Amino acid sequence: MLRLYYGPHSCALAADIALAEAGLAYEAVEVDLRAGDQRRPEFLSVNPKGRVPALVTDRGILTENVAILAFVAQSAPEAKLAPLDDAFAFAQAQAFNAYLAATVHVAFAHGRRGYRWADDADAIAEMKRKAPEAVGDCFELIEREMFRGPWVMGEAYSVCDPYLFTFTRWLADDGIDPARFPKVQAHARRMADRAAVGKVLPRYVS
Amino acid sequence: MLRLYYGPHSCALAADIALAEAGLAYEAVEVDLRAGDQRRPEFLSVNPKGRVPALVTDRGILTENVAILAFVAQSAPEAKLAPLDDAFAFAQAQAFNAYLAATVHVAFAHGRRGYRWADDADAIAEMKRKAPEAVGDCFELIEREMFRGPWVMGEAYSVCDPYLFTFTRWLADDGIDPARFPKVQAHARRMADRAAVGKVLPRYVS
Repeated sequence: MLRLYYGPHSCALAADIALAEAGLAYEAVEVDLRAGDQRRPEFLSVNPKGRVPALVTDRGILTENVAILAFVAQSAPEAKLAPLDDAFAFAQAQAFNAYLAATVHVAFAHGRRGYRWADDADAIAEMKRKAPEAVGDCFELIEREMFRGPWVMGEAYSVCDPYLFTFTRWLADDGIDPARFPKVQAHARRMADRAAVGKVLPRYVS
Repeated sequence: MLRLYYGPHSCALAADIALAEAGLAYEAVEVDLRAGDQRRPEFLSVNPKGRVPALVTDRGILTENVAILAFVAQSAPEAKLAPLDDAFAFAQAQAFNAYLAATVHVAFAHGRRGYRWADDADAIAEMKRKAPEAVGDCFELIEREMFRGPWVMGEAYSVCDPYLFTFTRWLADDGIDPARFPKVQAHARRMADRAAVGKVLPRYVS
């Protein structure tokens, strides 16, 4: 059986929702990120990166949401979580998710984990100050150029949807008014109505 | 015909090499990044993100190396640039590329483009100071845990190889001794011997 390592409030939510939508059998194992368990030997032996999500399969471990989400979609083709038979449409979905991973998540991380890129306390504080601006710029681009509606990629729900939802939920916590992005905000409401989201979300709000 | 927008010294090198390896017909169009042409209306009408690589296809544009590289592999299956018939192995390759995009490239970017995440000059200087340490940590993880050899994913060359090669080439420019990572350094030499690399590389060294 698949095993998903996750932490509350983490971006593992995206993989967790996708697994639930796919109807795949899996267990979710919490890693206490606040206690730093992701950097202890027990977890590093699972994922040397010391990050969640990490998906343990019978063939080995997978990391990185972009890869895990595509794997979940390919492992349950009947759930139609990605346009698997159309290389261009699949690449568009992967491009959306890659933007979330490499630009949106990174912009958020400067608000809380600036120590990754600076040691000086003033520099870390400056990154934290600017983070809402950088995140806001990303969401403006998503709202204006990338989001199709009613789902991220248009009429068909896909693994892009739980991943966007994950970051939309972080906006208010970081002092960014979600109402600035009406399409994205309506998308989050649509997501909250889904059974898979209702099932998974309690793990992430402790 | 496919059209690849690239800039010298940019990470578009990875997509460019992959296209050449795939044997796909394409033209490469230079964007003058130093002159800021990526932020002018002409280019923003192609790619609203204002970044390279951007791959124009007859169905629309693709961005993000992680997506472009997988698309190139899927568009030329006979070139065997990814394990397309094995969802787990494909996800492992995608995970490697996602790590390069979301962690390695981001670590490099703090050395040259800190203004993305801070306005204060001292904070930007502090990021620049720490960047070689963050990049070095990434390459240590790649050398120790991720690189299989002789190619990134093992015996089979894949789209992970030009992407890793792209960043290995940046090490020395950023004051990081590539000799710290012997497997990665040997990989770069192996890459330099490939015909596709010899064909494409002159565009990136001007």
